[in-house]
Amino acid sequence: MAEIPTTSPETTLRRVTEFFKQRGGRKLKAVGIGSFGPVDLDRASASFGHITSTPKPGWQNYDLAGVVAQALDVSVGFDTDTNAAALGEARWGAGRGLPDFIYLTIGTGIGGGAMVNGQLAHGLVHAEMGHLRIPHDPLKDPYPGWCQYHGDCLEGLACGPAMQARWGVPARELGPTHPGWALEAHYLALGLVNLALALSPRRLLLGGGVMQQPHLFDLIRDDFARLLNGYIRHGDLIDRLDKYIMAPQLGPRAGVLGSLILGEQEFFAQK
Amino acid sequence: MAEIPTTSPETTLRRVTEFFKQRGGRKLKAVGIGSFGPVDLDRASASFGHITSTPKPGWQNYDLAGVVAQALDVSVGFDTDTNAAALGEARWGAGRGLPDFIYLTIGTGIGGGAMVNGQLAHGLVHAEMGHLRIPHDPLKDPYPGWCQYHGDCLEGLACGPAMQARWGVPARELGPTHPGWALEAHYLALGLVNLALALSPRRLLLGGGVMQQPHLFDLIRDDFARLLNGYIRHGDLIDRLDKYIMAPQLGPRAGVLGSLILGEQEFFAQK
Repeated sequence: MAEIPTTSPETTLRRVTEFFKQRGGRKLKAVGIGSFGPVDLDRASASFGHITSTPKPGWQNYDLAGVVAQALDVSVGFDTDTNAAALGEARWGAGRGLPDFIYLTIGTGIGGGAMVNGQLAHGLVHAEMGHLRIPHDPLKDPYPGWCQYHGDCLEGLACGPAMQARWGVPARELGPTHPGWALEAHYLALGLVNLALALSPRRLLLGGGVMQQPHLFDLIRDDFARLLNGYIRHGDLIDRLDKYIMAPQLGPRAGVLGSLILGEQEFFAQK
Repeated sequence: MAEIPTTSPETTLRRVTEFFKQRGGRKLKAVGIGSFGPVDLDRASASFGHITSTPKPGWQNYDLAGVVAQALDVSVGFDTDTNAAALGEARWGAGRGLPDFIYLTIGTGIGGGAMVNGQLAHGLVHAEMGHLRIPHDPLKDPYPGWCQYHGDCLEGLACGPAMQARWGVPARELGPTHPGWALEAHYLALGLVNLALALSPRRLLLGGGVMQQPHLFDLIRDDFARLLNGYIRHGDLIDRLDKYIMAPQLGPRAGVLGSLILGEQEFFAQK
């Protein structure tokens, strides 16, 4: 596994394609990409495989799948990073045996992927779970939100950069008793309650940089239970919340391992 | 089609089972029930077919499917009323040919069902889309919300009884220019944006008593577009919102026709 930082599309993709070319040896049969979004996943669309409306400079309307396919002369399986991570967790991680679960990542942004009836949910475009609108009381938290599109959506209130902007230091530098964590847990619990009510998953997996704080899980579970207020009477949502809201088992490798599955699916789809 | 009012479980179910018995003639092969919820849809559960935590007096933990199965000596297909309606719209209505769409009903309560990859989403329990948490500004709308469990969740703010409690008259008596409709559209748009972001449906169908106001649809579409703010760049969400957010084609018959499909599925499942 290699890590290449995301800078400009040209530099990043040159290094990515060089990585594969330097492996030499056998010809690649297929490549899988789990990309940040929004992306176009519609194979019938002229912009299939493109990144679309991202705020990341230079990446708008970038033909990510096309550039990789051409540079490596290979077929490309393409999906969002969070759908890829859900796929990885479904086969090798905390989603094994669960036909319905959600993978959510909370880091520089917030995004999620859902498995429904054993298949990734795609729909018209793909989920954008980070941009859910949630209650925000400006008297308790005057921070207006980080999101360029929506201000105080879930991502705008609870992503890593929002924590840093609100408290003046990176989230990882806040001590475990800092009130910022209870507020963070509250916003994440609101998002999770909405996802649980919309999709009725069997498990919610929370990954990403912000979730590398083990104490955050119990704060979220407590607030999640308080918000649901016993409305859904299922033991998993009441007595077994430690198994309902939990960390992905593949950690930061979920996305890469899931992308392997995207490549594998592409390979078999060609046959 | 016959309509029997929902009173006590005993009276209601006696009249329902009498309706079928009086038809006489050929033995019933199967019955389909689309029930208000929450219900237990887990066939492995001891309370399968029961209504669970409803605030409706007398209906808590009522074995709806069991009572019908026993009284009519017949197999029962069982799902939520909104899942049944989604099933009906999928086969005969505005969901035809759409693998992913959501049916939402806004009336005395708010509930929804989702079709994902051509199958109803069930998950751990079933969706409870009416109870999504959405922003509520008490300075603009001091009404605290109708929901017994959550106060100002989507249902608590936007169901028919909430409108009546807020404005002092039934919703249908508010004139079309009453500011209550813009507020109603705003809450519904917040809920729809969250559903669209969580599930990426190809269409949102809005039925139920409150939606029998044609002018409400355009108010909702305008607020939906404003809230999404161009983040998801797909023509259906920008240029074709009149086809994206629309009324069910089967109207109030969606649930009954969908329940026929539940009965049909049960019949074929027995074979």
